[in-house]
Amino acid sequence: MTIISRKMTTATAGASLVRKMFEEGARLRASLGPDKVFDFSIGNPDLPPPPVFQKTLARLVAEARPGAHGYMPNSGWPEVRAKVAAHLNRTEGAGLKNPFTADQVIMTVGAAGALNIILKAILDPGDEVVTPRPYFMEYNYYADNHGAAIVPAEPGPAFRLNLESIAEKIGPKTRAVLINSPHNPTGVIYRAEELAALGRLLTSAGQRHGRPIFLVSDEPYRKLAYDGLKVPSVFAAYPYSVIGTSFSKDMSVPGERIGYAAINPDLPDHQSLFNAMALANRILGFVNAPSLMQLALADLLEESVDIGLYEQRRNILADGLAGLGYQLTRPEGAFYLFPRSPLANDDDFVNLLKEENILTVPGRGFSLPGYFRICYCLPPDMIKNSLPGFARALAKAKG
Amino acid sequence: MTIISRKMTTATAGASLVRKMFEEGARLRASLGPDKVFDFSIGNPDLPPPPVFQKTLARLVAEARPGAHGYMPNSGWPEVRAKVAAHLNRTEGAGLKNPFTADQVIMTVGAAGALNIILKAILDPGDEVVTPRPYFMEYNYYADNHGAAIVPAEPGPAFRLNLESIAEKIGPKTRAVLINSPHNPTGVIYRAEELAALGRLLTSAGQRHGRPIFLVSDEPYRKLAYDGLKVPSVFAAYPYSVIGTSFSKDMSVPGERIGYAAINPDLPDHQSLFNAMALANRILGFVNAPSLMQLALADLLEESVDIGLYEQRRNILADGLAGLGYQLTRPEGAFYLFPRSPLANDDDFVNLLKEENILTVPGRGFSLPGYFRICYCLPPDMIKNSLPGFARALAKAKG
Repeated sequence: MTIISRKMTTATAGASLVRKMFEEGARLRASLGPDKVFDFSIGNPDLPPPPVFQKTLARLVAEARPGAHGYMPNSGWPEVRAKVAAHLNRTEGAGLKNPFTADQVIMTVGAAGALNIILKAILDPGDEVVTPRPYFMEYNYYADNHGAAIVPAEPGPAFRLNLESIAEKIGPKTRAVLINSPHNPTGVIYRAEELAALGRLLTSAGQRHGRPIFLVSDEPYRKLAYDGLKVPSVFAAYPYSVIGTSFSKDMSVPGERIGYAAINPDLPDHQSLFNAMALANRILGFVNAPSLMQLALADLLEESVDIGLYEQRRNILADGLAGLGYQLTRPEGAFYLFPRSPLANDDDFVNLLKEENILTVPGRGFSLPGYFRICYCLPPDMIKNSLPGFARALAKAKG
Repeated sequence: MTIISRKMTTATAGASLVRKMFEEGARLRASLGPDKVFDFSIGNPDLPPPPVFQKTLARLVAEARPGAHGYMPNSGWPEVRAKVAAHLNRTEGAGLKNPFTADQVIMTVGAAGALNIILKAILDPGDEVVTPRPYFMEYNYYADNHGAAIVPAEPGPAFRLNLESIAEKIGPKTRAVLINSPHNPTGVIYRAEELAALGRLLTSAGQRHGRPIFLVSDEPYRKLAYDGLKVPSVFAAYPYSVIGTSFSKDMSVPGERIGYAAINPDLPDHQSLFNAMALANRILGFVNAPSLMQLALADLLEESVDIGLYEQRRNILADGLAGLGYQLTRPEGAFYLFPRSPLANDDDFVNLLKEENILTVPGRGFSLPGYFRICYCLPPDMIKNSLPGFARALAKAKG
């Protein structure tokens, strides 16, 4: 008999597959040396935080202002939220009737914390959240945390939004559509026209079902966009929109658990959603986002690591793999690439790559078998040195 | 029609009563001046963090060690967890068969985060958690977050553990008993004999119901003990015990959301509980405890603010109120006092105190009407200056 809950017995059994893969990576590194193992399995930014982050942190610690480590409202420091609101007005305010204020911003324990307080605020047990495949499988837990369930929609060509499938999956229990752009694991960035069309779809579906359907946008990779692309905002596309984001990827501080949620200022009755999300922050056990990091990042909203370095890696990997004959959609942002598996069974191909000391994640780990995910948070030389292994694995698969 | 979930519609309606009280405090301070309002309503430590905390933080920021702000295992930095384990062996290892190791420690987003990952790991929907009245009402949400419910037991004389009531409340759905020592809102510290008796009760109840009942101990006030008392450990009392704690109160850093959970090393199959709690940390959206604060506090495990300052306040307030004729149980720890309400209706008496610009919380806010809570996180002079107001309110109540 297990001593833990039935739910977590199932969850830990599933999780131990992933853990085994990580352990395999550690084992390989220990036996072969770290430069011989190409660990493309995890989205852990390898660039250090920008120097201005360390400087700001040092200044704040030296200042030792009274209360800097104390409680504040569950939504976060008001002056920090006001600065985030000003940032949102500059970057995503176009086309909105109302400006962002501190009352639409809640500082959170990373984007995962943001998504959980958003979902807690809007979901009752039995509700459904539609999300396009492939998707970050943690979403299943985030919905289940609040008694709800993810309903996957099919992807469109090149992983673009498939409005027909989304429309088909929306029913009377649908409370939200959850999207992610730039996208993990495909690197796709949804265009303004796609978002506008999705907004129209959700408006009419909400009217048909007699209650609004929220558009929840998971955006931790917003600043990681390449080829001069700007990530279009969901706010202008649809009033019932809420975003969750973090500084984890663009400032390389994922261990600090700092991000925010922002509510569309054009959302009718946004105050009640804000109140529910702030209370959710408290009762889910987050209480508030870490204080010192709130204060530090409020002055660094326009900063980021050098995005060009990730773009350079994208180029080496996408060009390299395409040159070898891999079928892939060129990522437009984030730091993931999601090629077709040359074998029908993506697990088998991931195992072929493992024989080359290349660690990746099968597409079934993102609810889309037949593909595999490569995370390119690795130095350019490592990426280059991995290409012969990718070539050999492809040859074996074809042979 | 509300746009938020039914659950949160109810929750925010309840929460707005508390919010109104806080707003009243802010309004009073603005109109009368901050020194004229005696805000005993919130447990927000007013002492600054000890200087060694600032120094350690400054050193860590200056070091800028690679990866210090990056991801680590969901359970926290292994070297930090090893230091916490060593601390637990020094302070709570007596009477245990096995020593604590890093594998029984999970760094968390405060004690609230710790309690939520513990409960998530052991509770299925429909399960029950028994806790003695009065209790921190957030526990209701923490249980509900995982589909479970709090079942309150009655307090014993002077708020000591009432084993008869606890035994009576334990049924086939009981998965845990949740205690808190030093106790919010009474300041009681459970004695080693009380804990041992509770342990025996849980052992036999677990055998009767065919599965272990966990003892979950919420211990953020462990270092805030007075009169030379040492807070006895639950670990020696019962093998199926888990604690959640934080540095919020003893280091005055509640805004940083840093604490830990520790599993009894004598707990059979502690590894599966550890795995479930580490996974819960991830899937509830905490992911991990804030990195820099983990590293900072790992070297400060024997440090705290000057506890004597809180003891001094306890003396001024407990002696002062007892001298005025209030009926109270002298607190042994934490920074709360929970006197009997001189009026049968504690709301009415809290309102009488409000007329004296003294803000407190009615006992019904802790599931025990007929009392009220005073939090003495205020400078000694403020506490002294509040006593005439307490005297007048008592006179009015008696008059």
